[in-house]
Amino acid sequence: MAGKGIKKKGITVSKKDDFSAWYGELVQKAELADLRYNIKGFVCYMPWAVISIKKMFAKYEKALEKYGHQPLIMPSLIPESNFHLEAKHVEGFAPEVFWVTEAGDGKKKFEEKLALRPTGETAFYKMYSLWIQSYKDLPFKRYQSGSVWRYESKMTRPFFRGREFHWIEAHNVFATLSDAEKQIKEDMKITHEMIGDEFAIPVIFFERPKWDMFPGAVRTHAADALTESGKVIQLPSTHLLGTNFSKPFDVSFVDKDGEKRYGYITCYGPAISRIYGAMVAIHGDDVGLVLPFDLAPVQAVIVPILFEDSKDNVLSECRKIEKMLSGRYSVKVDERDDKSPGEKFNEWEMKGVPVRIEVGPKDVEKGQAVVVTRHDGKKNAVKVSGIEKAVTDIAKRFTKELKDRQMKNFAERIVDCKTMPELEKAISDNNIVRCGFCSMELDGEKCADIIKDKTGAEVRGKKVDKENKKFLKCVVCGKPAKETVYVAKSY
Amino acid sequence: MAGKGIKKKGITVSKKDDFSAWYGELVQKAELADLRYNIKGFVCYMPWAVISIKKMFAKYEKALEKYGHQPLIMPSLIPESNFHLEAKHVEGFAPEVFWVTEAGDGKKKFEEKLALRPTGETAFYKMYSLWIQSYKDLPFKRYQSGSVWRYESKMTRPFFRGREFHWIEAHNVFATLSDAEKQIKEDMKITHEMIGDEFAIPVIFFERPKWDMFPGAVRTHAADALTESGKVIQLPSTHLLGTNFSKPFDVSFVDKDGEKRYGYITCYGPAISRIYGAMVAIHGDDVGLVLPFDLAPVQAVIVPILFEDSKDNVLSECRKIEKMLSGRYSVKVDERDDKSPGEKFNEWEMKGVPVRIEVGPKDVEKGQAVVVTRHDGKKNAVKVSGIEKAVTDIAKRFTKELKDRQMKNFAERIVDCKTMPELEKAISDNNIVRCGFCSMELDGEKCADIIKDKTGAEVRGKKVDKENKKFLKCVVCGKPAKETVYVAKSY
Repeated sequence: MAGKGIKKKGITVSKKDDFSAWYGELVQKAELADLRYNIKGFVCYMPWAVISIKKMFAKYEKALEKYGHQPLIMPSLIPESNFHLEAKHVEGFAPEVFWVTEAGDGKKKFEEKLALRPTGETAFYKMYSLWIQSYKDLPFKRYQSGSVWRYESKMTRPFFRGREFHWIEAHNVFATLSDAEKQIKEDMKITHEMIGDEFAIPVIFFERPKWDMFPGAVRTHAADALTESGKVIQLPSTHLLGTNFSKPFDVSFVDKDGEKRYGYITCYGPAISRIYGAMVAIHGDDVGLVLPFDLAPVQAVIVPILFEDSKDNVLSECRKIEKMLSGRYSVKVDERDDKSPGEKFNEWEMKGVPVRIEVGPKDVEKGQAVVVTRHDGKKNAVKVSGIEKAVTDIAKRFTKELKDRQMKNFAERIVDCKTMPELEKAISDNNIVRCGFCSMELDGEKCADIIKDKTGAEVRGKKVDKENKKFLKCVVCGKPAKETVYVAKSY
Repeated sequence: MAGKGIKKKGITVSKKDDFSAWYGELVQKAELADLRYNIKGFVCYMPWAVISIKKMFAKYEKALEKYGHQPLIMPSLIPESNFHLEAKHVEGFAPEVFWVTEAGDGKKKFEEKLALRPTGETAFYKMYSLWIQSYKDLPFKRYQSGSVWRYESKMTRPFFRGREFHWIEAHNVFATLSDAEKQIKEDMKITHEMIGDEFAIPVIFFERPKWDMFPGAVRTHAADALTESGKVIQLPSTHLLGTNFSKPFDVSFVDKDGEKRYGYITCYGPAISRIYGAMVAIHGDDVGLVLPFDLAPVQAVIVPILFEDSKDNVLSECRKIEKMLSGRYSVKVDERDDKSPGEKFNEWEMKGVPVRIEVGPKDVEKGQAVVVTRHDGKKNAVKVSGIEKAVTDIAKRFTKELKDRQMKNFAERIVDCKTMPELEKAISDNNIVRCGFCSMELDGEKCADIIKDKTGAEVRGKKVDKENKKFLKCVVCGKPAKETVYVAKSY
């Protein structure tokens, strides 16, 4: 009955037809961000998004601490000279730095420009050289949650890519290369636990080709997630920096044998605001937002179906259900009287509330309520005495079901190609291509450029996990394939 | 027995004799901050401080949300033109702003300078004018947790005052002045709940004199806390901005009667990093840090007294106690074998761990442990079966006892003065003076300047709570006293 005659006010473009327009409309209609701030590339994050983002930070920080990282708060400004200590790093980041050059009413000009941190290496390692003295100080694992600023030349999109974003960066120092390698594995494990299990986004870790590494890294591993448009989005990356930074920054220690040695450094950077954007993009549908159960600002909304003569009964039943749930869940009775039930349904669907509980006069008579799950639209009449159990059952499976759906999607989208025409077709059909490739060293970049020119897609690298598929020849040049790589368009 | 022959390694200067040196040493020895970062006025916050600061943020955010505030994340950069909309605001903050003038490798110069947010009004209200349209949107209560940057000319001191600090700012809009006034009262209530009850720092709220207001405010209320040196430190302030900002920023709404009206704005700014510094300064002693129970990174440390022949027994008893406590408390067994028990005692006292549990072989024989509380040094032998209850009892009273101690100190330090010589003596004896004063309007500033010149102390304003004490004459000029004010030196 409820909802009859109400025009569904979802999103006016389909996600399938025009992902960009769909995403933009969702961000606006679910009130996630406002793009009208008067500096280009900077947006305001609205409460509905911020509440989830804070939960994501809290979960991630807890996980990092469980694995032995301790929190720091480092300054947001970095002297220019710090950057110049590592040549590739400065070269990579120089085009993207916002510079503070003066203070006050114009009289104070800084002798040395100060960078608004685009990434923290050159601040952290300056201090690490003071903090790390002996092998007893290792392993040294620290992280910071904070903002970074990058003068992006690429098109910005709220949460996905902006000129200010919100992330965690972990910087770790080890006595040996093998300890550092273990950390990279641990970072990947944390990624799967967080991005995969908690945020319901399956990712594949790729070792990036040599021409696509973090500036200053020995090796870059990055998690790619798949969006419905067929483009991948890079989520956390973990980098083996080796001794590239520890030498110029003198991050060294006296080893057991009394010798001075340089530490092996790894860094890991989950960009929470970007992960939030990916989550919105990946789980959302044409009705609106879909959020993992734990991350939803409201987990269950109770909507009364009100008629004048039964209003009090229905409302008191709603409040009773609210009371049953509110100890464990974030729950809300929508008592507004200037909206119809149908309008409320639409609004909470747009906002991605995982569970809706409808209570009408007939439900009260039967001692039941109608429980609707957001991700699959299923409706069930449930006895009021069993509501808590029903919601708890949903809480247990909701996020897993979101993830499983995406896993299936991901697996189906990977297409093996042996020739360029096959690859071009597969990419234009919004797939990810698996193919043979001549080399991930710098000599392979030429073939990667050809793919990029023809299709707009990039060589994302080779899978970190064991790769079962082997190809004989490079899909571009036909030379023997040293690697099996994945090719996709990306955000 | 433990600790015998161990030189107490507390702080080498007494807090009473030289507060500044004491504080500096405490910050270093308890490993709270490192001042060696290579930009003046910017420091690195170390894990032991950051863990407590994060807990403080979480408590405060929860309280603000309980009172109906919703979280935002606003950009850190603000266009210069936003500042110029409110004349007094720009005048007050202009000398303190860090300016971003360029990006990238020097080619991109911004047409308009971008301020690193020294405070958020001019970013928030620019957006509020878009977000607030109707009386239905009011009250509108939002907050942000984040960093602010100020090119301070005053001497910096870690946590107390730095060029980057970490705070919460809440900005609220109301339809009427009286609603705004109620918000000011609510802000004060939150302050007492948080700063007073949770962080154990008693404060007095003062209405500041007209010459000492937040730039752009109609009225400023600020909470002063007392330190042992007799100086006060300003903790959160809450400002009635009235329509001073809503007019130039056009924060307006269509009222029930269809008329356009300007919103009444209040703002509230608890600077968490500064409150942390105050907490360290106020509760600490010559042995080290003292922290409110909830905020301590480790709440109970278990120190085994190890001898070769009983080592296994003692360690297993320690782990048993750890297991009993670890569900409810943050607890740690200090198993290091390169430190003596006495050295461990000193270290954990320096770090401000509220409860120490000592377990030696004789304790194991008797089925007991020795429980020591950090704030009063009291030792009690407790049956192991009763340890959880003992710690829970301590948890309940610890923070309250810290606060009560400070309340007593605060009350004793307030000295009534009728003449300037009395005032000068009281200030030089490290007290807070209560006295008659001619006027808190701008015509009173001359008398305030005389006090400042003679004593270095400032007129902090009149108490917001009811003032029972009346004076006949202004302590400086002898004219009739319109107000009873408080005078103190400040950080």
